[in-house]
Amino acid sequence: MKQKRFILAENELPRQWYNIQADMKNKPLPLLNPATKEPLSAEDLAHIFAAECAKQELDQEHAWIDIPEEVLERYKYYRSTPLVRAYALEEALGTPAHIYFKNESVNPLGSHKVNSAIPQCYYCKQEGVTNVTTETGAGQWGAALSYAAKTFGLECAVYQVKISMQQKPYRSSIMRTFGATVTGSPSMSTRAGKDIITADPNHPGSLGTAISEAVELATTTPNCKYTLGSVMSHVSLHQTIIGLEAEKQMAMAGEYPDMIIACFGGGSNFGGLAFPFMRHTILEGKKTDFIAAEPASCPKLTKGKFEYDFGDTAGYTPLLPMYTLGHTFKPANIHAGGLRYHGAGTIVSQLLKDGYMRGVDIPQLESFDAGMLFARTEGIIPAPESCHAIAATIREALKCKEKGEEKVILFNLSGHGLIDMTAYDSFLNGDLVNYTPEL
Amino acid sequence: MKQKRFILAENELPRQWYNIQADMKNKPLPLLNPATKEPLSAEDLAHIFAAECAKQELDQEHAWIDIPEEVLERYKYYRSTPLVRAYALEEALGTPAHIYFKNESVNPLGSHKVNSAIPQCYYCKQEGVTNVTTETGAGQWGAALSYAAKTFGLECAVYQVKISMQQKPYRSSIMRTFGATVTGSPSMSTRAGKDIITADPNHPGSLGTAISEAVELATTTPNCKYTLGSVMSHVSLHQTIIGLEAEKQMAMAGEYPDMIIACFGGGSNFGGLAFPFMRHTILEGKKTDFIAAEPASCPKLTKGKFEYDFGDTAGYTPLLPMYTLGHTFKPANIHAGGLRYHGAGTIVSQLLKDGYMRGVDIPQLESFDAGMLFARTEGIIPAPESCHAIAATIREALKCKEKGEEKVILFNLSGHGLIDMTAYDSFLNGDLVNYTPEL
Repeated sequence: MKQKRFILAENELPRQWYNIQADMKNKPLPLLNPATKEPLSAEDLAHIFAAECAKQELDQEHAWIDIPEEVLERYKYYRSTPLVRAYALEEALGTPAHIYFKNESVNPLGSHKVNSAIPQCYYCKQEGVTNVTTETGAGQWGAALSYAAKTFGLECAVYQVKISMQQKPYRSSIMRTFGATVTGSPSMSTRAGKDIITADPNHPGSLGTAISEAVELATTTPNCKYTLGSVMSHVSLHQTIIGLEAEKQMAMAGEYPDMIIACFGGGSNFGGLAFPFMRHTILEGKKTDFIAAEPASCPKLTKGKFEYDFGDTAGYTPLLPMYTLGHTFKPANIHAGGLRYHGAGTIVSQLLKDGYMRGVDIPQLESFDAGMLFARTEGIIPAPESCHAIAATIREALKCKEKGEEKVILFNLSGHGLIDMTAYDSFLNGDLVNYTPEL
Repeated sequence: MKQKRFILAENELPRQWYNIQADMKNKPLPLLNPATKEPLSAEDLAHIFAAECAKQELDQEHAWIDIPEEVLERYKYYRSTPLVRAYALEEALGTPAHIYFKNESVNPLGSHKVNSAIPQCYYCKQEGVTNVTTETGAGQWGAALSYAAKTFGLECAVYQVKISMQQKPYRSSIMRTFGATVTGSPSMSTRAGKDIITADPNHPGSLGTAISEAVELATTTPNCKYTLGSVMSHVSLHQTIIGLEAEKQMAMAGEYPDMIIACFGGGSNFGGLAFPFMRHTILEGKKTDFIAAEPASCPKLTKGKFEYDFGDTAGYTPLLPMYTLGHTFKPANIHAGGLRYHGAGTIVSQLLKDGYMRGVDIPQLESFDAGMLFARTEGIIPAPESCHAIAATIREALKCKEKGEEKVILFNLSGHGLIDMTAYDSFLNGDLVNYTPEL
């Protein structure tokens, strides 16, 4: 009888996050002040982020960062998440590959996002902040932040991408259930939003527009900090709890992954799973194929340029050294709202440039085909974002079948799709299409 | 540092279900043929149910029933579910009580229902059945059955209560994602449905009407069996996996519950949690307060009569000895669709009559107040059904506070409410009301 699920005991939970920047041979290039083109200091970043997050963002020295006790206590409510061997999916594919997934969909609020929402709110609270604000696409991050803010007694204002708000109305309700204020972006409530709407009255919004609005609110509101659900290095740092657990759990299963796969929006769920394993590639030369699955309609990893660009549409953020499609790129209205972002985080961009990982592009229809197969075999309806990781996994598993190779594949099930049923409905009705971006 | 979560290793999972009928001093009265008033045999029941389920239904001899290996293998994908100590809720209430909950919301499809859907489909498959049909209220049972049917290669047709379908459209989408056919009940596709609509064109449907339609489909379709998500004794039997796990997990926590609480529709999540603990009350005289939380608008336990009644609106089922509001009782349109049922299962009815347990009535607004507090403290948005268990738990925890008693309360979080966000929206908007039934 084969074991299907691997879960760590509470006392085996990692007590530190892994900061890959300390081990990288080529460090990420600095963030620049757009006016002066000078590198930004932690003090500069602390104008918009919690000071501790700003410090973590630029830390290229310490490979291990202690998880604060109060954060660890909250992690214990739901972590470790299960590592699951997907026997039913393997059987349906007829592949000799061993497929494992890390199940972040059973977290509070249904995705990996809570792993960073908790520490970000914790640091804000510690530093005397009373209000937090953010952007959200599909709403996974906004929901997680709303919950974390509530538990730490912080007020929370969320700018949700307008098209996602229409596609997934329940996610706004979830945020309101946790007491957050939710505004569709672009909105008329900020200078940035007004400018975007004036230029394009039908702008569906994107993570880029919502970031502009949230940053503006943070910088114009007393005692308010901006928080981010992906892209930034400190967010990926918090998410390494996923990979650190997975490493121990894979050892319980007696295997080590040949391939590690995650979907890719800004990079936090990818980095969270991949970085702890990539450490062994960097330090010990371990051979692992790291695959970031992005939507074919928003292909910054495979078709973007590595250059300095803004993180938001309005140009409020620092200049980030990253693979980007340009900060004014308007992603198609795919249902994977969390992947509708023009750029990649600075760490991942450097690692991609240095050949440690690769991107693959998944068309929307292939992603839902994969999600349907996964649901019907494993019983979990995956988030449209996670469907991209599953699609990439299926591609690799079928290659293994062709070649008769018994490879070990580990992917991140970053969230469930229960709030995305309109997307599945559209797919079942034959209403979804693929998009080819104009670049 | 206090442990928050208790999870069983795969090899500690229970391998048998517990059949409380064997230990009950007063056995449940027999099911009767409505025409002859003669007790029904397993053969009679096997006309609509899988033969093995029919056998389990009437088994008053064997206290322990082996879980088939193939069912156990599927349980292992998600079981044990976590037992969680709700420290944050305790703190918010300022109660000395120790509150634990069994978290069935992280199951595939988000509720306890899958625990019985898997064995029912397994037995059908074993017996050469090709089609299954059922009723569903909120849609939790229909979703679980759709998934289980798909994994065993069975066709699945679901009659969903019309009002629930309108309140929770995503649940129909979920069922369709798993390939099921979903029809709103009452419908024009059955004799029973036509009769109900003719008598009352605006009938919102109820579990009673949907059962009539599903039973009719099962009896008029070749090679098709009817399955049920609650009420019947074999369903509660399968759900005892919850309580059997919880018993081991409470031992890990070093405690034994003084109170056991679950919401109550037909009785399966209540019985599933309570019966394994009640065994110690029956056999060893252990004192535990068993509380079934029903909606004040559908109060069969506290205001129903113990008598023979039909399980469905049209009168297609056997006559069941149960606490009932009458099979033509039309429950108010509360959002806890899974609790909108006129009767209680035969085992629970006998246990209630014999004083082993008690019912409490929870008004709709109190249930959502409780759900909101639970969400904001524990980070899980509970199903409207489960909110009733939480409300009853809060009542008891506040009594403990008043009296300074450190009691141990265990409740069942039977499912999450992510598909029920319209209900939370209505609550937040102040649109929900309490209902007092006319009896």
